Amino acid sequence: MGFTDLMTGARVLVTGATGFVGRHTLGPLQALGCEVHVISRRPANHDSRGVRYHECDLHNHAGVASLMGAIRPEHLLHLAWDVTPGEYITSLENLRWVQSTLALAHIFVECGGRRIVGAGTAAEYSWHKSPCDEATTPLVPDSLYAGSKLALWHVLDRLSAQGSVGFAWGRVFFMFGPHEAPERLVPVMVDAARRQQSLTLRHPTQVRDYLHAADVGAAFVALLASDVQGAVNLASGEGTDLSALAGLVGEAAGTEVPLELGPTLDDPHPVVVAEVTRLREEVRFTPRFSLRSGLRDTVDWWFRQHGNAGT
Amino acid sequence: MGFTDLMTGARVLVTGATGFVGRHTLGPLQALGCEVHVISRRPANHDSRGVRYHECDLHNHAGVASLMGAIRPEHLLHLAWDVTPGEYITSLENLRWVQSTLALAHIFVECGGRRIVGAGTAAEYSWHKSPCDEATTPLVPDSLYAGSKLALWHVLDRLSAQGSVGFAWGRVFFMFGPHEAPERLVPVMVDAARRQQSLTLRHPTQVRDYLHAADVGAAFVALLASDVQGAVNLASGEGTDLSALAGLVGEAAGTEVPLELGPTLDDPHPVVVAEVTRLREEVRFTPRFSLRSGLRDTVDWWFRQHGNAGT
Repeated sequence: MGFTDLMTGARVLVTGATGFVGRHTLGPLQALGCEVHVISRRPANHDSRGVRYHECDLHNHAGVASLMGAIRPEHLLHLAWDVTPGEYITSLENLRWVQSTLALAHIFVECGGRRIVGAGTAAEYSWHKSPCDEATTPLVPDSLYAGSKLALWHVLDRLSAQGSVGFAWGRVFFMFGPHEAPERLVPVMVDAARRQQSLTLRHPTQVRDYLHAADVGAAFVALLASDVQGAVNLASGEGTDLSALAGLVGEAAGTEVPLELGPTLDDPHPVVVAEVTRLREEVRFTPRFSLRSGLRDTVDWWFRQHGNAGT
Repeated sequence: MGFTDLMTGARVLVTGATGFVGRHTLGPLQALGCEVHVISRRPANHDSRGVRYHECDLHNHAGVASLMGAIRPEHLLHLAWDVTPGEYITSLENLRWVQSTLALAHIFVECGGRRIVGAGTAAEYSWHKSPCDEATTPLVPDSLYAGSKLALWHVLDRLSAQGSVGFAWGRVFFMFGPHEAPERLVPVMVDAARRQQSLTLRHPTQVRDYLHAADVGAAFVALLASDVQGAVNLASGEGTDLSALAGLVGEAAGTEVPLELGPTLDDPHPVVVAEVTRLREEVRFTPRFSLRSGLRDTVDWWFRQHGNAGT
C-alpha cells in the first residue's frame, strides 16, 4: 500500500465491522496504528484484540449521537447495510439505511470528524459498457439498493465539496471469500464441487470483475488512509467468465465443478468490469490475492467449515 | 388542465402547504373534489376552508407515522423543505430533509399510499446546455441542496419502479410571486422600482425560465392528478434575460427599475431554460399567467403589502 503512517494514533470508527468485508478492515487499521472503534448491534463476544466495541443499533440515532460525542472519531469507515441475500436489492430497509447513513454522517461532522469513507456499488453504474469508469460512466442505478447507494453518493459528495469533511466512496464490484452467504455464487460452486452435483449456468459466458473480500477490506482501509476524494472502484480490473470461475473453483477443490449449461438467455449485461486506475495509481493499492489464490483460500475455508461440521 | 375527476373524493396529504408554492395547491385540490389533509408545524390559525390541518413536525417520524395511520391518504404531495434564503443551498438541514422525506415515503407506502409527488429542482441538472430535458440532460447537482433533491429522486424513482407506489417528481425552475422572501430577485427589483434606488445586475444578459408560484402550485396538482411517472419540468419553457425581467417589473410598477450594469463577469451558465413537452403534452398543463401578467400580479401584491404597512 502506498501510504505510510498517516493514520498512526488516529481515532477510526468502523460500522459493519463484523460483516463480510468489514471483518477484513480491523487488522489493516490496527497495523496502521489507529485507535479502532466499532459500533455493532451485537455484543462483542469475541477476542477484541485491542479493538474497542460499542454496542448500538445504527438506526438509533440518539444512541449514535451519544456514542459519537464520547468517541469523537477523526475517521469514519461506514460499511454497515442490510444485505440479506434475496431481499436486499428491493427491500424497503434500503430507505432506512439511507436515513441512518445520513444521520451518522451529520453527527460525525458535528462532532468534528474529518474524513468519511463509505461503501458504494458497481450497480450505481450503467452496465451497458465496460470498463466502468468513475469519471465517465453514466450513473444509472437499476434497483432500489443501487439507487439508495447512489443517493448517498450524491449527498456526501456535495457535502464534502463544501469543505466541511473529506469523503471517498468505494464502489465494490463482485466479491467472494470466507463467510459468504451460502446461497451466493462461489459458495454454490464450492458446494457443487464437494457434492459432485451438477450446477446449471444460465450465462456461462457472462464476464464479471471478482475480488477477494479481504482485498476489498484492505482497499477500504487504504482509501481511508489516503487523501483521495470521490468515487473509487474497488475491484481487480480483470474480467472472468462464469465457466472460467467454475474452472478455478474446481481446480482449488481438486475436482471438477460439474456444469450444465442452461438454455442460452439474452444477457443484457454480458460484461461488467471495473477501471481500476484510480485504485492503483491514486490510492496505490494492489490486491494481495490473484483470482486463483483467492479462490484457493476461499475453497479451503469452505472445506474446513464442512470438515468442522463433520460432513 | 387535462385531467377531469380522477381525484374526486381521494384523500390527499400535503406537506409544505403554507409555503411559497404549497399555498397555491389547496384551492386546485379542493376544486378537484379531493379530501385535503395538511401536515404543518404551525397550528392552523387561518380559515381552513374545508382543509383538515394536522399539527406535526415532519422530523418527528413517530408522530408522522401515527398521523398517517389515522389519515391513510391515497396521494402524497410533498413540498416541505427548509429553504431559508442564503442558507438552504449549503445547510446541513438538507441531510435531515432527505431523511424525513424517506421516512415519510416509507410510512406512506406502509399505510397503503398509492402515489407520491415530490418537489425537485432545476439544479439537479447540469446547466451546461439548455433546454434541460428530463430524459437526456445529465444529472450533475452542484450544491448540497441539489444533491439532496437528486438523492431523493434516485431512491423514489427506484422504489416506484418496483411497482409498490406511483411517483412523479416536479423539477421546479425559477419562480416568483406573492409572499416571496424579500431578499430574492423579483422582490428586490420591485423594491428598487418603488424606492427608485439603483439595482446592480452583474449578469444582465443571463437567461432563466420563470414561472409564477401559483402556476407551479397548480402544475404540482395537475401532476398529482395525472398518471405520469418520473421527472417533469415545472416551468414556462421560455427564457427571459435579467434586463428584460427588470423591464417587465418596471412596466408593472408603472415606473422604471433603475439599473446599473455591473462589470461583466464570466457567467458559467448564461442560459437555463426547461424543456416543457412532458408538462404540456403528458400532464396537459398550461400556465394561467404569462410572465407579463404574472409579474403584474406580483408587483400589485407587493405594492398592497407596502400600502398596508403604511410606507
